[in-house]
Amino acid sequence: MNILTVNAGSSSLKFNLIKLPEETELISGNFEKIGLAGGLYSLKINGSKIKKEVDMKDHKVAIELLIKELLENKIIKSLTEIDGIGHRIVHGGKYTQSVMVTDEVVNYLEENASLAPLHNPAHVLGIKAFKEALPNTPMVVVFDTAFHQTMKEEEFLYAVPYEWYQKYQIRKYGFHGTSHRFITKTMQSKLGKDKLNLISCHIGSGASLCCIKDSACFDTTMGFTPNAGVIMGTRCGDIDYSIIPYYMEKTGATIKEVDNILNKESGLLGISGIGSDHRDIENAMKENNPKAKLANDMYVNRIVDYIAKYYVKLNGEVDALVFTAGLGENAREFRREVLSKLSCLGIKVDDTLNDEIASYLDKHEGLISASDSKIPVYVIPTNEELMIALDTYELIK
Amino acid sequence: MNILTVNAGSSSLKFNLIKLPEETELISGNFEKIGLAGGLYSLKINGSKIKKEVDMKDHKVAIELLIKELLENKIIKSLTEIDGIGHRIVHGGKYTQSVMVTDEVVNYLEENASLAPLHNPAHVLGIKAFKEALPNTPMVVVFDTAFHQTMKEEEFLYAVPYEWYQKYQIRKYGFHGTSHRFITKTMQSKLGKDKLNLISCHIGSGASLCCIKDSACFDTTMGFTPNAGVIMGTRCGDIDYSIIPYYMEKTGATIKEVDNILNKESGLLGISGIGSDHRDIENAMKENNPKAKLANDMYVNRIVDYIAKYYVKLNGEVDALVFTAGLGENAREFRREVLSKLSCLGIKVDDTLNDEIASYLDKHEGLISASDSKIPVYVIPTNEELMIALDTYELIK
Repeated sequence: MNILTVNAGSSSLKFNLIKLPEETELISGNFEKIGLAGGLYSLKINGSKIKKEVDMKDHKVAIELLIKELLENKIIKSLTEIDGIGHRIVHGGKYTQSVMVTDEVVNYLEENASLAPLHNPAHVLGIKAFKEALPNTPMVVVFDTAFHQTMKEEEFLYAVPYEWYQKYQIRKYGFHGTSHRFITKTMQSKLGKDKLNLISCHIGSGASLCCIKDSACFDTTMGFTPNAGVIMGTRCGDIDYSIIPYYMEKTGATIKEVDNILNKESGLLGISGIGSDHRDIENAMKENNPKAKLANDMYVNRIVDYIAKYYVKLNGEVDALVFTAGLGENAREFRREVLSKLSCLGIKVDDTLNDEIASYLDKHEGLISASDSKIPVYVIPTNEELMIALDTYELIK
Repeated sequence: MNILTVNAGSSSLKFNLIKLPEETELISGNFEKIGLAGGLYSLKINGSKIKKEVDMKDHKVAIELLIKELLENKIIKSLTEIDGIGHRIVHGGKYTQSVMVTDEVVNYLEENASLAPLHNPAHVLGIKAFKEALPNTPMVVVFDTAFHQTMKEEEFLYAVPYEWYQKYQIRKYGFHGTSHRFITKTMQSKLGKDKLNLISCHIGSGASLCCIKDSACFDTTMGFTPNAGVIMGTRCGDIDYSIIPYYMEKTGATIKEVDNILNKESGLLGISGIGSDHRDIENAMKENNPKAKLANDMYVNRIVDYIAKYYVKLNGEVDALVFTAGLGENAREFRREVLSKLSCLGIKVDDTLNDEIASYLDKHEGLISASDSKIPVYVIPTNEELMIALDTYELIK
């Protein structure tokens, strides 16, 4: 079976075509600046890359181009060879697992668009455009929030008036759930154990940690939105909210302007003034830039804080600590720094093992802790697209 | 020497007269509803209480009444027997320790009133009124924030644009510093050790934890304002700030209205709908009220989270964990619950010792952990007034 995974943004569309159950990626690609000037797309087929510049009026045009490329490159012979489509949805609201796309699902996403105003409307756009282009292909939606729906009320509520939850669905949702679920599944197979307690660290330009108890989410760092928890590339993570009314009063800024700064001009970028990419921070640190060091220290400390918190939440019974995503998979010095601050929990990094693993090296995954570390530490590359394809496959097969 | 400690609010004035170096309280009292209808004041002299109803136009009138009572009750024979006045100031901004009141200090507090708009202007009112009533008595200001000024930049900054700190002084300040400092001083004497690592839990209707390294503040839970960190009686503590723009959009509320709800209608009160006093929550829990249990669980968990975080920040080298203030000194079941969740750090409560200590029992302080607890746990009654008096005494003697 060939499953097309789709991640539709307001002006972008990422896709992968994955053959299952073999788990082979046949092609992947990214359409950018849809509906804007300077449209372009890139494709990756068997390691070779293609880039083309072409303006696209809307998502429908992008999908037509996608289908044309699949046929011309002989990835498939006819559209019937696309057996199913799995859509990534950032905010699943009430949904606790992946489901087949129905009118009811689409209506729910549209009605609750305000929970993720930047993402969910674009996802719905993608669903509708594919429905039009491939009306007979079964479609599935896979939610970033679903894995976290096992959190208990005392973990997912905020200490605000209870009616905010009842009336306005204000609670912790958590995100990156598809990634944390993939990590759980991979670790179950790696450790040969069904019920696992894990601390999963998805550290990319967006970043979240997940406290996993008996292979289910117990707590996570992102909250009502993805801008809570640890420090990210441009997102502030946890702050004292009272900064907001104070800043508005001082500057006359509107709440939208402040929200925008806290999402797009804060985090590593805001502190360092250098950039949102941790690699730029690392480079500046090599040149002894004090702001880069400050940003990195704050970034590392916040992650250490949450690991400490989750260690106690799991009563010290942690089967593994796992790093994944951009920094987690590649930033060896960053991993070493985090782990060195956890020595009082009996965690010990093995510097040699740690240095051997990065996606640009030969070794991409494995153990990085010392043999006498109380908790084993792993690097596991995440694969959200595969998880989306697998969910789709399971629901339609 | 007799030192008058003063805590002036916008419509209130609390005071204590303390004889030093004996540390004897001669009288304490509270003037309420100053400038409002229904003014009243209460005094406590040698355990007996006096209450009087009298409207007071302003703080000056309250101070005249205060002086009259001191003389009539023969606490002092003349005003010259008040050797110094120590004012409690919530927000000290840049100040790192208590200082003598000068024009410069008063100007600084007035210029930076926006950092603590509910408190600092009232404190300045108090300073000016006493200056008028007792022009020759030396005065000192003692700041709630001062103890926390030893935090490093990577601990006190938020991951927001760095210029927010430079231009608008947006940073973590921390509060309850006078209490955390009193606890540090008391524990230094109790443990006979100068440099202590402590986790100090000041848990009252306002609540904060302090991570103390080498007897200095290393980190604390309150932030730019007192509405950050753990859950409080009516304050939300840490939340995902993004709730605010969402709630404003949904309801049309202004930022001031939301801020007010998060300060005055959240926390234990907001979750439970029962009340802000933990004793009411405890009583409702006895009647199996599910919202009371929910509020209590969230309340306890948040404190446990921070203790875990501070344990790791101190690299596991913690000389003592200390409970103080209303709940900390009295709520035995609450203390037991918190400690039972810390067993993976080697912390063990001694139920008998724990049950013996509360301010309404014979024993008010002491050890509550088991002899084989990896970290000793103490209950120590806080005494911010004594700390203010001692600072004043040191500066004027």
